[in-house]
Amino acid sequence: MKQFDLKKFIIEIKDFPIKGVGFKDITPLLKNAEAFRFAVDKMVDFVKKVKANVIVAPEARGFLFASAVAYASNCGFVVVRKPKKLPREVYEESYDLEYGTNKLQLHKDDLKSDDKVVVIDDVLATGGTIKAIIKLVQHTGAKINGLLFLADLKFLHDKDLFSEYENVSLIEY
Amino acid sequence: MKQFDLKKFIIEIKDFPIKGVGFKDITPLLKNAEAFRFAVDKMVDFVKKVKANVIVAPEARGFLFASAVAYASNCGFVVVRKPKKLPREVYEESYDLEYGTNKLQLHKDDLKSDDKVVVIDDVLATGGTIKAIIKLVQHTGAKINGLLFLADLKFLHDKDLFSEYENVSLIEY
Repeated sequence: MKQFDLKKFIIEIKDFPIKGVGFKDITPLLKNAEAFRFAVDKMVDFVKKVKANVIVAPEARGFLFASAVAYASNCGFVVVRKPKKLPREVYEESYDLEYGTNKLQLHKDDLKSDDKVVVIDDVLATGGTIKAIIKLVQHTGAKINGLLFLADLKFLHDKDLFSEYENVSLIEY
Repeated sequence: MKQFDLKKFIIEIKDFPIKGVGFKDITPLLKNAEAFRFAVDKMVDFVKKVKANVIVAPEARGFLFASAVAYASNCGFVVVRKPKKLPREVYEESYDLEYGTNKLQLHKDDLKSDDKVVVIDDVLATGGTIKAIIKLVQHTGAKINGLLFLADLKFLHDKDLFSEYENVSLIEY
């Protein structure tokens, strides 16, 4: 299989969306069909290794990989969304972003207690989003078999963050 | 191949997000791995038929299918986003939603004039979002080879809407 240095497909944008934040622009990776396929296939390897049957991902950028990974690993795809997007009964958790705060919701009936979940997001920064998603999943009784990221901004969090879970990133900063 | 009646995986929610709107909740389709795969594979058939090399989709719900379809059809994946999300130089167009108005942006360098595009979204309602995306793509000189939707709410638009394009929906209402 052709190998890709995925970092070469990510552009660092200084001071976006606010001063002091180094934004990782992953759009060049998405638009390169071969690099995108390489990244998704690596993620699928992890999903199979931890024997998950459901992918859970937050809007909007989590969906960029979660949809393809769910498809290619034969998993269900469950979405975590911002308030007022999911129309049925939800669990809700608050979270702190790298820049700002927000709330996330999960449909109560979207996971069952025997589901085995991998949570996918594009970039792990301070981990606030993922902590909220873990709580949302735990409300349903489903098990979290792993956490999966395209890129891990390791300088933004403690090295033990999420060490209680199987936890993989394709790229590290 | 096992066939699925995809309509059975969509829940109609009355008066969401505002009174008078019948919201199509597609989350049951996403979380059923087999139904999701069936829908994606149907979309891939269309993408191959029209010989596209790039999938373009708007946040957030367009991503739910576009990522998997791009992966499975070996296409690049180009995102259309709301303002302040794309960090580099963009084209911008305004659009009317079924409920409200908004703006959409596309990175100027994400499409080239020889790209052949399929635009994917989950639900075609009044078509405002898609009209804006068509304009954004046209600014780049890329060709639109097709429009692809999970569901077409035909009662919300003229029957000739987008008839100048190859144009397929897996479900009609």
